[in-house]
Amino acid sequence: MTTHDPRRLAWAYLSRVAQGPHRPVVDHAAAHGPESTAEAVQAGGLGERLAVRAHIDTAAADLDHIAALGGRLITPDDDEWPAWRFLGFDGSGLSAGVDTCPPIALWALGTQPVDAVTERSVSIVGTRASSPYGDHVTAEISADLALDGWTIISGAAFGIDAAAHRAALGVEGTTMAVLACGVDRAYPAGHSRLLRQIAARGLVLSEYAPGTTPAKHRFLARNRLVAALGSAVVVVEAGWRSGARNTAAWATKLGRPVLAVPGPVTSPTSTGCHRMIRDGEAVLVSSSHDVVAEAGALGSTEESRPDLFRETDALSETALLIYDALPATGSLSSRELSENSGVPLSKVRASLPVLEMDGFVASDETGWFRVVRG
Amino acid sequence: MTTHDPRRLAWAYLSRVAQGPHRPVVDHAAAHGPESTAEAVQAGGLGERLAVRAHIDTAAADLDHIAALGGRLITPDDDEWPAWRFLGFDGSGLSAGVDTCPPIALWALGTQPVDAVTERSVSIVGTRASSPYGDHVTAEISADLALDGWTIISGAAFGIDAAAHRAALGVEGTTMAVLACGVDRAYPAGHSRLLRQIAARGLVLSEYAPGTTPAKHRFLARNRLVAALGSAVVVVEAGWRSGARNTAAWATKLGRPVLAVPGPVTSPTSTGCHRMIRDGEAVLVSSSHDVVAEAGALGSTEESRPDLFRETDALSETALLIYDALPATGSLSSRELSENSGVPLSKVRASLPVLEMDGFVASDETGWFRVVRG
Repeated sequence: MTTHDPRRLAWAYLSRVAQGPHRPVVDHAAAHGPESTAEAVQAGGLGERLAVRAHIDTAAADLDHIAALGGRLITPDDDEWPAWRFLGFDGSGLSAGVDTCPPIALWALGTQPVDAVTERSVSIVGTRASSPYGDHVTAEISADLALDGWTIISGAAFGIDAAAHRAALGVEGTTMAVLACGVDRAYPAGHSRLLRQIAARGLVLSEYAPGTTPAKHRFLARNRLVAALGSAVVVVEAGWRSGARNTAAWATKLGRPVLAVPGPVTSPTSTGCHRMIRDGEAVLVSSSHDVVAEAGALGSTEESRPDLFRETDALSETALLIYDALPATGSLSSRELSENSGVPLSKVRASLPVLEMDGFVASDETGWFRVVRG
Repeated sequence: MTTHDPRRLAWAYLSRVAQGPHRPVVDHAAAHGPESTAEAVQAGGLGERLAVRAHIDTAAADLDHIAALGGRLITPDDDEWPAWRFLGFDGSGLSAGVDTCPPIALWALGTQPVDAVTERSVSIVGTRASSPYGDHVTAEISADLALDGWTIISGAAFGIDAAAHRAALGVEGTTMAVLACGVDRAYPAGHSRLLRQIAARGLVLSEYAPGTTPAKHRFLARNRLVAALGSAVVVVEAGWRSGARNTAAWATKLGRPVLAVPGPVTSPTSTGCHRMIRDGEAVLVSSSHDVVAEAGALGSTEESRPDLFRETDALSETALLIYDALPATGSLSSRELSENSGVPLSKVRASLPVLEMDGFVASDETGWFRVVRG
């Protein structure tokens, strides 16, 4: 048996006894260090729920176990700890029974550092009962993003999750699964091979100590990490009440863009996506280009296309303000145009199609741009 | 030959010589009456374009011709003139070469009054090259709306237009075609039977005098009437540059809701709809329920569903403001909730899914409502 660093042992102990997100433990450990927090737990000072489990000290065995699997415990002490991914956790409630706080620590299988894996990452989630259409679109978007260097994060479930992971693997991209159970437990069992492949090319991650079984509240807590660790959440297919929508709600709470892929209105698996788009909870995306545009990376620059030119004298004052706010080269979103021109967003949105139809501006996936003189 | 009322003859004359929307003619006729305007045209006082055509006086023959077809000329003098449908025409430009003004008069085949036909009406438009999916969804939505007493307005083109008209006819509903040529000319020729059926169950309408041939600028001008005469425009399938998008731009200009039906992102015929939704130019609709909700009619009232109840003490101040803004019975849209609560719309939209997940509120097609104590 290895001799473990006492601080690391304390983190492992806290992760085991807390069994998931626990705001008092996180706050106490941040203020006083994990060893002091472990003592507080054992003295019954951090709540009854912990007190009854305080005697369970399997920390050394857990660390040995994860090491034997080729994995590791990642703690806030480690350089790779992705602290910036947890900045949006303000402690206010979302799902009942799930504290909105960073994980105490993260158990990982895989060799890549979690901060590197999550630096440019998108979470792609959806229904377990996906349609062939949903699987196909998930694969297209995930493969494109993975080829472009984005990590594909998901939950390793059947359906959309699996299609997302597999597509990233298929193009030798990076993918990460966040589980609602210990990383040593393949859940679902049918995905044990997939999970091994994910660990080999990215990471399998969980805030639950090895051996922890999946449970409903753990899926809800896990969803907050899926939302937190990506720069955007893409929902491909989802019914109205679904885990994907829970993940999307977390993303909204954390300030991450929520993106949804539309589908046939005749398909029940697209109902959730359509309603999220309609109600303004999600932005419609049709392609990896759309996802990248929303996830905040720079869009590909494209030469302005020569086209019909007309005199701007005939433009209304509002239209002229919007036109003048466009740079000579490069493109802007409607929102940026609103900010630059001082014209309200709704008016910008109403005016752009008019300007486009009259040949003053055009648009592509990077936004709106000036049509240059022919 | 019938003896015609001189005022009516003047309207027919003006419609013939103006050949489409013409702001000076409309304004002059509104101020001085059509006979005085006809004199002004003949004196060359309303522009060169009209002066060169001023000698063409086929008014009596045109009125005889339309009467022989069982049709009529509808003028601003007539009780059925749908003046309120043209209130948004403020004279500012949209498409080049198309004045944004009310029609001078309307030539009609069919027996129903145009004001009655357009009282509860929705315009449904889309690509000529529709997919089987687009045809199917158009038929579903149009039939549902027509059964519910809505008039289906479209342009009698191949593809989505035809599917919309046919579905309304199929349930013995009311439908209206607005043409870019004379109502005596079946365009497209393959739709001559369809146009006869539409006239029998509703109206075939045009601002162009009998015999006028279709032309590109007439389609653009026609689109403004399609947008104006309905309470909302629904785009079912459309490429990015399309007549449907032109109709949608008119609707935006006129303050009509623009609605778009999503489809598979793999289908090029849905590209225009997806982009309009993404860019905030259109609201996503999946069904006739969605259309009715946006077109402004009252949604079906539905009993609040009993569900889980939790104490509101735990709610954040913002969430409580939103919850308190909901009436005891009935539902509100996010926008109404924002107005009633004073909470910004973006915060309302972020908070509602949280409140829903915690069991305080629920939503259906009529909007958000309180979940009552069980």
